[in-house]
Amino acid sequence: MTNYKKTELGKIDELINLENGKAFLHDALELTSCEISINAVPKGFKVPFNHKHKQNEEVYIILKGKGIMTIDNEAVKVKEGSVVKVAPEASRTIENTSDNEFQFICVQAKVNSLEQYGLKDAELC
Amino acid sequence: MTNYKKTELGKIDELINLENGKAFLHDALELTSCEISINAVPKGFKVPFNHKHKQNEEVYIILKGKGIMTIDNEAVKVKEGSVVKVAPEASRTIENTSDNEFQFICVQAKVNSLEQYGLKDAELC
Repeated sequence: MTNYKKTELGKIDELINLENGKAFLHDALELTSCEISINAVPKGFKVPFNHKHKQNEEVYIILKGKGIMTIDNEAVKVKEGSVVKVAPEASRTIENTSDNEFQFICVQAKVNSLEQYGLKDAELC
Repeated sequence: MTNYKKTELGKIDELINLENGKAFLHDALELTSCEISINAVPKGFKVPFNHKHKQNEEVYIILKGKGIMTIDNEAVKVKEGSVVKVAPEASRTIENTSDNEFQFICVQAKVNSLEQYGLKDAELC
């Protein structure tokens, strides 16, 4: 096992050129604790279905633009700097309501898996 | 348990005005799967110590600027779009080598806790 692994996605504003405007990190970095997607989507984009999760909590971090997350049929407005945690069993979708690019990061990790964090998990060395 | 929780951080470029240039999300969102920090630090910033983790894998996502992560004494150059996974036991620190602001997100979650992800964990609904 190596102590680190790095990948290069390039400029965040150019991720919109990727297939589906999405870069997934799990496989590229051999992650064992979470899956992360970096998303950049154009005006008018909407995930065309609702989904929920079996095990994983999701955290959406909005980097640019504004949108609407529909969570259990509630319209939740989001914009740059909004961060939303979604419970596994909630139905969700997301759309871009900006006139321009909408960028967000989505982290998924197993609900209730975190045992400690911050100073309790860190050691100076 | 609510199905979602939201917080507002404001403009990403203005996070540099926070104490230590850091916003933590665990407590604000009652996360149960990970801790996430959003970081915006000025020219010359360097975390003044090395640290490692007991349980948690970390993922650093660089949003703006460039820097150096020192991982087990190896200098790893990073810039916008670099993403680095660091194993719990690795010694690490990070510095801004840009002439301007350096922005990054750090996700920590328990190593080997992810059981499934992507289509295996998702269900249409």
